[in-house]
Amino acid sequence: MIGEIIAIGDELTTGRIVNTTSALAARELFFQGHEIRAMHTVGDVPALIGQALKEAVARCDFVIVTGGLGATPDDVTNGAVIEALGLDGMVHPGVHANIASRLDQATAELLARLAWLPVGAEVLDPEYRMAGYLLRHQSKPIWFLPGVPPQMEILLRTKVLPGLRDFDHDRARPVCQSIYRTCGLFETEISRRLRPLEEQGLAIGYYPVGCEVHISLATQAVPGAADAGPRTADAFIREALGDNLYGMNEKTLAAATGDLLMQRGFLLGAAESCTGGLMSATLTETPGSSRWFKGGVIAYANEIKERILGIDPVLLARFGAVSGETAQAMASGLLQRLGCDIAVSATGIAGPDGGTPDKPVGTVYLGLATRDQVSDRHVRFTGSRRQIQEKTAQTAVDMVRRALLVR
Amino acid sequence: MIGEIIAIGDELTTGRIVNTTSALAARELFFQGHEIRAMHTVGDVPALIGQALKEAVARCDFVIVTGGLGATPDDVTNGAVIEALGLDGMVHPGVHANIASRLDQATAELLARLAWLPVGAEVLDPEYRMAGYLLRHQSKPIWFLPGVPPQMEILLRTKVLPGLRDFDHDRARPVCQSIYRTCGLFETEISRRLRPLEEQGLAIGYYPVGCEVHISLATQAVPGAADAGPRTADAFIREALGDNLYGMNEKTLAAATGDLLMQRGFLLGAAESCTGGLMSATLTETPGSSRWFKGGVIAYANEIKERILGIDPVLLARFGAVSGETAQAMASGLLQRLGCDIAVSATGIAGPDGGTPDKPVGTVYLGLATRDQVSDRHVRFTGSRRQIQEKTAQTAVDMVRRALLVR
Repeated sequence: MIGEIIAIGDELTTGRIVNTTSALAARELFFQGHEIRAMHTVGDVPALIGQALKEAVARCDFVIVTGGLGATPDDVTNGAVIEALGLDGMVHPGVHANIASRLDQATAELLARLAWLPVGAEVLDPEYRMAGYLLRHQSKPIWFLPGVPPQMEILLRTKVLPGLRDFDHDRARPVCQSIYRTCGLFETEISRRLRPLEEQGLAIGYYPVGCEVHISLATQAVPGAADAGPRTADAFIREALGDNLYGMNEKTLAAATGDLLMQRGFLLGAAESCTGGLMSATLTETPGSSRWFKGGVIAYANEIKERILGIDPVLLARFGAVSGETAQAMASGLLQRLGCDIAVSATGIAGPDGGTPDKPVGTVYLGLATRDQVSDRHVRFTGSRRQIQEKTAQTAVDMVRRALLVR
Repeated sequence: MIGEIIAIGDELTTGRIVNTTSALAARELFFQGHEIRAMHTVGDVPALIGQALKEAVARCDFVIVTGGLGATPDDVTNGAVIEALGLDGMVHPGVHANIASRLDQATAELLARLAWLPVGAEVLDPEYRMAGYLLRHQSKPIWFLPGVPPQMEILLRTKVLPGLRDFDHDRARPVCQSIYRTCGLFETEISRRLRPLEEQGLAIGYYPVGCEVHISLATQAVPGAADAGPRTADAFIREALGDNLYGMNEKTLAAATGDLLMQRGFLLGAAESCTGGLMSATLTETPGSSRWFKGGVIAYANEIKERILGIDPVLLARFGAVSGETAQAMASGLLQRLGCDIAVSATGIAGPDGGTPDKPVGTVYLGLATRDQVSDRHVRFTGSRRQIQEKTAQTAVDMVRRALLVR
């Protein structure tokens, strides 16, 4: 089925908040075989909301609207819908009773707006804890969901996706999309290597994310049939990418690295200076990371590099905190102090200040220590402070991954 | 002026990538006094791109289009524009010469698409390093910018915003928007406290971000005139929010906390378990954080809590790693080892596994140590692993901030 998504809120059209809910919905719908024709964002202006809704309903099989369902005065979605679709409004008895039963009278009055819904609204949460309802208009479903991402996600997964099947008479054919995740190659180089596949007309997309490039290959799933095309394509892509391919689909670089650590029974440690904790945070975002990540030290001040990592002050003075020698000493010092099997380190200048002609902002040294060797790598990144920190963290994790591949 | 933004790319409509460039553009335009009527996202489909562009041009004073300008075959924006607006295409001599001069012939041929632009396109980057151009259509400006966020940002700031002034005959009046950033109060409670202002018709918005709530107050700037309304509103809001207000506008919680540390000449340290580095990463995202952040230890394994933080194994065994006693011991151990003035710690269960009936997923203990006292706080968070980690990091930083306020 073909749908559109409308996100509502001045916080979006003034750019204060990045719209993450539309992307989440689009992603889930895509994997169910539906197609998002377009996504729109409009502010808290009833006339614009109404117009966007009417246009979308006329063009599509279904519409998802997020945001503006709350109790504060800037929540205007329900009124806009009632007006635009020519419906009546009603106090929803279930929602109203729930508010009245849970809250004192003053708070209940404050939240009374939550119960004012279009006639015909089918409330999604049977416990009325979350706003959101389904409206059938001209026999097309329109789902109204909260703008708060966790609530929106729950209702999307438990109500919208199963509910869409009731309207899908042709049964959408799930799309089989493979994502090849790489680190270490530029997008143009990957495109050059994959050109033969593109010339065959395969749908390939390229998505740079910091130092990573994710490549998508989309095919319609053919249930029960062997699909020779994509299988050959898969082998071609794997050959072309080599060791730069670290994982498929949802697998993160940290999780792929964690898998390799687990296979070897290794524990990892991280000694960070310019990344300030981001390298460890990237690793420990992975569920179960305690099985392969032992811990880390954020040696932001030179004193910590000496006191906790045991780096020789003479070495620090001679080569400077931002040097290959210090990166090596941080990694091997941590390995020893933590008692881990492999340690990675980063020291550099994330900016915006602190650059010199010799070592401009973006200069980074990465260190890697195992029980039998220690090495370092010099890289120069561009971008904002946060981008340099992110690229450094990615590259450091990839260095661990590559070290585990060759062993 | 009233504008619309169109973002192009299958990676957006399939939800793989969250659209951050539209929010960035909207934000910058808003502060210049322009209004974004709507933002749209469409896939790499020439017909849809063309239709969205024609509709937007008809409705608005200006349009910004991002994405699809690259050299890979899924970049179709230029062809779609030529078709939709009935223009001719041309090989842009400057872009073409630049590609030919910098690259070998094979690569230059690969990138030839970059030079195929609509007739009339005014290329934005004089060095031709970045894609992007201005097209004047029916005397309205349409800017085409790269989808890659850092490039888009540079061209937006240096070309689009100054360029818009040439088209703005009425001169948009900059909007004066104040953002009040809070930590420690729920959105509904803030709305209750600010109700008198809303009843006066002031435009107030509420934006929950994890444990924080940001409140916007928008007014048209009246150059040279004292605007009594918002000044009174400002005093009312400050009074209503009290200590929960940590900063204004762009100020982050970490930066506000850093300011307080600087005022007292204090150095901060962070001992993290469940946050795995995120607390330190949040702090060190702030430029200049090395002036008030000394370093940290990620004591993921219990062994690190003992070896690096010097926690008594008997205490760990008796109370468990996730306990107020351990949180206190982590903070005071770090204070001593690092030689800092204030140390904050977090230990908890971020999930998805590891919860027990006594200590379910989301259970967190925070510790705070200074030279003369140590304390802990027990909190229970909900959400995904990452959300629990983020809320824990925010709350820990806020605990440091509040401790500095009362001293």
